[in-house]
Amino acid sequence: MGDAPKRSPLAPKRLAVLPALGGVALSVAETGMKYRGRPDLLLAAFDKGTSVAGVLTRSKASSAPVDWCRDKLAGGRACALMVNAGNANAFTGKAGRRAVNETAAALAKTLGCRQRDIFLASTGVIGEPLDTQPMVSRMADMAQRLSPSAWPDAARAIMTTDTFPKLATATAKIAGKTVTINGIAKGSGMIAPDMATMLGFVFTDAAIAPDVLQALLTSSVERSFNATTVDGDTSTSDTVLAFATGAAGAPEINQANDPRLRAFTKAFDRVCLDLAHQVVRDGEGATKFIAIEIAGAEDDAAARRIGLTIANSPLVKTAIAGQDANWGRVVMAVGKSGEAADRDRLSIRIGGISVAKKGAIDPDYEEKTVVPHMKGDEIDIHVHVGVGRGRATVWTCDLTHGYISINADYRS
Amino acid sequence: MGDAPKRSPLAPKRLAVLPALGGVALSVAETGMKYRGRPDLLLAAFDKGTSVAGVLTRSKASSAPVDWCRDKLAGGRACALMVNAGNANAFTGKAGRRAVNETAAALAKTLGCRQRDIFLASTGVIGEPLDTQPMVSRMADMAQRLSPSAWPDAARAIMTTDTFPKLATATAKIAGKTVTINGIAKGSGMIAPDMATMLGFVFTDAAIAPDVLQALLTSSVERSFNATTVDGDTSTSDTVLAFATGAAGAPEINQANDPRLRAFTKAFDRVCLDLAHQVVRDGEGATKFIAIEIAGAEDDAAARRIGLTIANSPLVKTAIAGQDANWGRVVMAVGKSGEAADRDRLSIRIGGISVAKKGAIDPDYEEKTVVPHMKGDEIDIHVHVGVGRGRATVWTCDLTHGYISINADYRS
Repeated sequence: MGDAPKRSPLAPKRLAVLPALGGVALSVAETGMKYRGRPDLLLAAFDKGTSVAGVLTRSKASSAPVDWCRDKLAGGRACALMVNAGNANAFTGKAGRRAVNETAAALAKTLGCRQRDIFLASTGVIGEPLDTQPMVSRMADMAQRLSPSAWPDAARAIMTTDTFPKLATATAKIAGKTVTINGIAKGSGMIAPDMATMLGFVFTDAAIAPDVLQALLTSSVERSFNATTVDGDTSTSDTVLAFATGAAGAPEINQANDPRLRAFTKAFDRVCLDLAHQVVRDGEGATKFIAIEIAGAEDDAAARRIGLTIANSPLVKTAIAGQDANWGRVVMAVGKSGEAADRDRLSIRIGGISVAKKGAIDPDYEEKTVVPHMKGDEIDIHVHVGVGRGRATVWTCDLTHGYISINADYRS
Repeated sequence: MGDAPKRSPLAPKRLAVLPALGGVALSVAETGMKYRGRPDLLLAAFDKGTSVAGVLTRSKASSAPVDWCRDKLAGGRACALMVNAGNANAFTGKAGRRAVNETAAALAKTLGCRQRDIFLASTGVIGEPLDTQPMVSRMADMAQRLSPSAWPDAARAIMTTDTFPKLATATAKIAGKTVTINGIAKGSGMIAPDMATMLGFVFTDAAIAPDVLQALLTSSVERSFNATTVDGDTSTSDTVLAFATGAAGAPEINQANDPRLRAFTKAFDRVCLDLAHQVVRDGEGATKFIAIEIAGAEDDAAARRIGLTIANSPLVKTAIAGQDANWGRVVMAVGKSGEAADRDRLSIRIGGISVAKKGAIDPDYEEKTVVPHMKGDEIDIHVHVGVGRGRATVWTCDLTHGYISINADYRS
């Protein structure tokens, strides 16, 4: 598998420091299933009454743990989350379903809670049977070592080929009471040989009813994780789960439109977006972090689809890797998105500089003015498609020799 | 722009030799608009009464010549085709429409025919105004030099960053009379810096009514050009036009279901598929020609979409570049296609060897058995998705460092 990958040049300068969060306790273990000398198994245990919500991959070949979570989310309550790194338990047929059932049964027994309140996530190799013994045999010990402060270990335990752990935190007030939101994530595209997936877990000590938490998470994911792309390859295992323990003592929120939720929603969105950006910043081979803002689309969903078409275009991504303000390729991508756009009113700004307007090159545009922006590692592209009021921002990274090397040169 | 690109390692061993084809005369010229020392302008003149049909890009940012052709195809008759290489006349606003009108008017005058029977195609840089003077000034001379045998020159004149000219030919009998089908094409993805596009032109001396020719072309393109992909980037200029001169003296075909058309349809399909394969074989940086056959889909259209999702997956393409039979990535791509697939009945064969069946790895599969196939330059992947009778085959190439070098390292 070659050497351990170098830390992404786009990694945050420092890791976020996550405070203890009432109602959540963590522990990690080394099973050696795939990785050596590092934790690869995470247990998060929750106080009784913790709400859960989730957004799962739309892949038709979803993994066994994704199917398990989809089924159990209906209950709205969580007792524990277990995540293993190195084996995705995807495309494993009946053996995969059996592995999930065994893991949940053993963990429920260890913690003394109901199987249906156990949530599971796995990432790594696709198509390899998951041996549950290395996980089951460590559960009792992990339950003994649960700690409220093991956030850095937790973020590391879920990594596969990530080059840095991903953590984010924020606070907000609900009815005068401060609540905390902690999040961890992993992923850098559909990742290196045989690896799959983006995982995100958000925890709060606010008290939020399951259906309200679900509405909040769905909306937040749409504008964060679902608005990012590294290589356009949807994995079999993508999972974002949110857990609300209620331990901060703030009043329980039972209505999605409760005005007391406003500041919390902003803080929650901030954590999701921060984690999603960190995943993009760890994109395989990435050297540029790219924000693409679309305005003037038919509606917000159309704007997001146009943005993602630009963000997934290999020609746009390679042009940016080459520091080339190649707006012709942006036009091409808008055209191929299939969404309404008025070619004769299309305008494009790169790094704030107008390069095209009213469907043709801006007569005042000189390429040299945009060169300093293209040489930086944060690229901003703004496109107005001239038909409506829909807007969206999406984020991606460039496509470089590093991506090819990671995915082609190293055999799994 | 760096050195001239090396001939693709997947190029056909020899170029097809196209015979003269009654009713079609060709000439080329060097305008020096972008390229030096090579022809970059093609004129094809047709006998009176020639039928025309076309399939044009679905891009919402289609070029001015594409818009012109879309409008004029309704007439069903063609007097001439002019193609320039180096400037796509796309995203050029009113100036682009004016350039198209001027070119058509001048050519109609030169040849003494109606403007609406003139067809135009342009590929190359997007967003640069097209100067018509270099074309208009050469028309009279080109009309003087029209020749029935200039097929190799014609195929070269339409190239942009292609590494080899693309030609194909076939014959068939209609009511005992031999008719010929000649085709030329250009393209290798959305091509190198600022370049755009796939063009294909098919000519026959059969006599075929415009609506029959259109039905035939639409169906053939669906299973050839539209079943191939290099980088998934739809260009602003993609154009396939078919011309039927009737000069062979075979009876005119006025019904799409005429049984006398059967052998002709097969030959016509063969020419389209041959040209489409040549475009893939000239894919930027390509080292492997990949055929992906899908069976068991809901219907043929679903099968084609699944096939194209696999063919466009950067993770599948990089795995093949790395000679890695990474079927987990094929599963991922089937899952992300959004089409119905029965995960528990999915089976995959690579190079004829069963690697996965019934939704899990084939217990008899040993990776070493597929290694010789992965080392070759023709890769076959067969996927059965287990839900219906829909089938399709699509073709693509691998994603290599060469693609990144062509599109990122060389600045336009």
